[in-house]
Amino acid sequence: MGARAGIVVTGTEVLTGRVSDRNGPWLAEQLRTLGVDIAGTLVVGDRPADLRWALRSLRDLGVDLIVTSGGLGPTADDLTGEIVAQEQGRPLRLDAVLEERIGAIVADLMARRGWTVSAEATALAVRKQALVPAGASVLGPAGTAPGLVVPIGSGVGPPVVVLPGPPWELQRLWPAAVADPAVLRALADRTELRQETLRLWNTPESEIAETLRELSGRLEGLEITTCLRAGELEVVTRFEPAAQATYDGLVAAFGTAYGGRLFSVDGGTVDDLVAAGLQARGATVATAESCTAGLLAGRLTERAGSSDWVRGGLVVYSNDTKVDLAGVPAALLDRVGAVSAEVALALAQGARERLGADVGVGITGIAGPGGATEGKPVGLVHLCVDAAWGRRSERVVLPGSRHDVRARSVGLAMHLLREVLAP
Amino acid sequence: MGARAGIVVTGTEVLTGRVSDRNGPWLAEQLRTLGVDIAGTLVVGDRPADLRWALRSLRDLGVDLIVTSGGLGPTADDLTGEIVAQEQGRPLRLDAVLEERIGAIVADLMARRGWTVSAEATALAVRKQALVPAGASVLGPAGTAPGLVVPIGSGVGPPVVVLPGPPWELQRLWPAAVADPAVLRALADRTELRQETLRLWNTPESEIAETLRELSGRLEGLEITTCLRAGELEVVTRFEPAAQATYDGLVAAFGTAYGGRLFSVDGGTVDDLVAAGLQARGATVATAESCTAGLLAGRLTERAGSSDWVRGGLVVYSNDTKVDLAGVPAALLDRVGAVSAEVALALAQGARERLGADVGVGITGIAGPGGATEGKPVGLVHLCVDAAWGRRSERVVLPGSRHDVRARSVGLAMHLLREVLAP
Repeated sequence: MGARAGIVVTGTEVLTGRVSDRNGPWLAEQLRTLGVDIAGTLVVGDRPADLRWALRSLRDLGVDLIVTSGGLGPTADDLTGEIVAQEQGRPLRLDAVLEERIGAIVADLMARRGWTVSAEATALAVRKQALVPAGASVLGPAGTAPGLVVPIGSGVGPPVVVLPGPPWELQRLWPAAVADPAVLRALADRTELRQETLRLWNTPESEIAETLRELSGRLEGLEITTCLRAGELEVVTRFEPAAQATYDGLVAAFGTAYGGRLFSVDGGTVDDLVAAGLQARGATVATAESCTAGLLAGRLTERAGSSDWVRGGLVVYSNDTKVDLAGVPAALLDRVGAVSAEVALALAQGARERLGADVGVGITGIAGPGGATEGKPVGLVHLCVDAAWGRRSERVVLPGSRHDVRARSVGLAMHLLREVLAP
Repeated sequence: MGARAGIVVTGTEVLTGRVSDRNGPWLAEQLRTLGVDIAGTLVVGDRPADLRWALRSLRDLGVDLIVTSGGLGPTADDLTGEIVAQEQGRPLRLDAVLEERIGAIVADLMARRGWTVSAEATALAVRKQALVPAGASVLGPAGTAPGLVVPIGSGVGPPVVVLPGPPWELQRLWPAAVADPAVLRALADRTELRQETLRLWNTPESEIAETLRELSGRLEGLEITTCLRAGELEVVTRFEPAAQATYDGLVAAFGTAYGGRLFSVDGGTVDDLVAAGLQARGATVATAESCTAGLLAGRLTERAGSSDWVRGGLVVYSNDTKVDLAGVPAALLDRVGAVSAEVALALAQGARERLGADVGVGITGIAGPGGATEGKPVGLVHLCVDAAWGRRSERVVLPGSRHDVRARSVGLAMHLLREVLAP
């Protein structure tokens, strides 16, 4: 096996779930593309003993590199620099040049925000962030806290890359971290590991298990993992370049077994396919959402440039906005109720017409936990995608929480859009 | 120190960031409310050696309980049950009664989805999920995979609670897990640990550091962590009941030091305060969003019952929808441009008027990475909240990625709403 790395995410706020961690996954993906395997990610709170344990566990596992995120701020619970310095056997020293640079950054920040903090408090905060383990490299800073590369002081052990917690700061310091000589040496053994993803729609995991069993003996050198989420099934395979032909055989076998349900073999997501479909047709899209209340429009505009194909949308959370904004006939609402196939279609058509779009999407459902009526349970959602060249409607009863029902409805709408936009 | 637990989240899809982990944070919060401290969360891929390492690292740390999530499905990469059985010294055995129950659940699921999988493949999938370590308790199942409580077979070590990966299944099995006698014994030492949160708006972390330094000597028995995100600063304090008076003193000192910037002392979020403010006034809200494109409407409708105060919204992503849907004068757009204080106000007023709401919110900005013009950089966002009794407008230049700019704009809009709705 080639080079392996471990990730330590610090912060009681991450451990307890008040903040969801974006750094661990981002770092894992960056390391993977470099050909470095990830052993694991450890999330620990802002406590010295727990942080020490995380560093030692990864060292005991024999990883070649440790990357940490967080714990570099000015408050007393920010202690990553200090603990890493101790664990690597390198005492902290004040870097006077760095202190001056951070001081200038902080002064500028304070001025722009109109913040007033005493000179003494500012000087203490700056000094804390300018303490550097002896023999460590300094990265940045991007924000106010610099990153560090801290080689082991004596004996044998992996270098530790120390990065700040705010994702954009961490991401800006990353290129300098991987260009550091100590990091390059640690990752000398990295090997190209390809990763490819197949995506299937509306397919049970047990069917994939059967297909893989039928192929057993023809999967040598492939590490295959499957993951089901929001109706999509992802089959991710990692392999060394020598196994490319074996992987190609797997893809061909899946194509035969699953046909159109295998909607992506090149890593493209449903979002990619919807954006590409709209661009290929030169078409625009508009939404009229009830239970998802803007989340589909938010998703369609996640990518830069989406203003070329997204016209906009209507959030019709109350019945009278369905009538006033989307033009759903009041009599229809009275007759079949807001959560119905007829209203989903009327919403899709209303979005098209009112926003002058080529494709309209209507979503109406009961996200729960309240709102169920006779024959209309929580989780019932009607969706419709309407275009001049085709239409797809769907009625589903989705399991899970209010959050799950809304998120799955958005995912399902994306797949209906994909199908209507398919060449 | 009282009882401590460790969490192991399995799944290559989580480790590599294709799926963001919701189980680790949820479990940490559940354990905390039980009075159990969390040592750390380890995320590992679907590999036997890495899963073993995670279990052993937590055992070496001396935790009283280990909880795992994921790896209980029917495919070959689902191996948590098997590895935990080996590590706890308890061989797997087929539970015939369980096999029959899972078989019935799977048959029902297949019928409802209209899936056809061979009887042999189904039987194999069912059998794999009905293998139970000798002497373990079975939890559920909620979906198809049961949870397990696996005590150590011989020697000394913590019991391992094995839960399925889908969040709603894991959450449904949790009450049975914590009622299990082996778990109750393991957590006998748990102690009440209170956790309270202060939330501040528009406050630098260095100012908090100074306040805490000034209070040093009066913080005995408090474990304080601070976390900055999207303009909000959270100060979370954990303490045993005996330190309640000390904590009350901290709250009083913060009240004096920060005044209105300390917007929450009872754990309430800005979302709570906006919902309560709308309910207290009997007011309704509507949105007109450009760069955030529905995300604010989506956030306002996250909570059950929000249909009582959310009318709906307009996603006005293109200039002509700003005119047609929200009634922004075309001449105004020509004169000052779409990203301007004037258009933010016109959007807020248009949302109020077109949707018949008491409060309107307008957001227009440049999320990037493209779209910057002379004097209007990426990250420039104008927001306005307009009501009969008051108005708040704000111009900001937000740092970070397209995702960050949109997310921060939504957070800022929530705070402007909070201010306009304040009693």
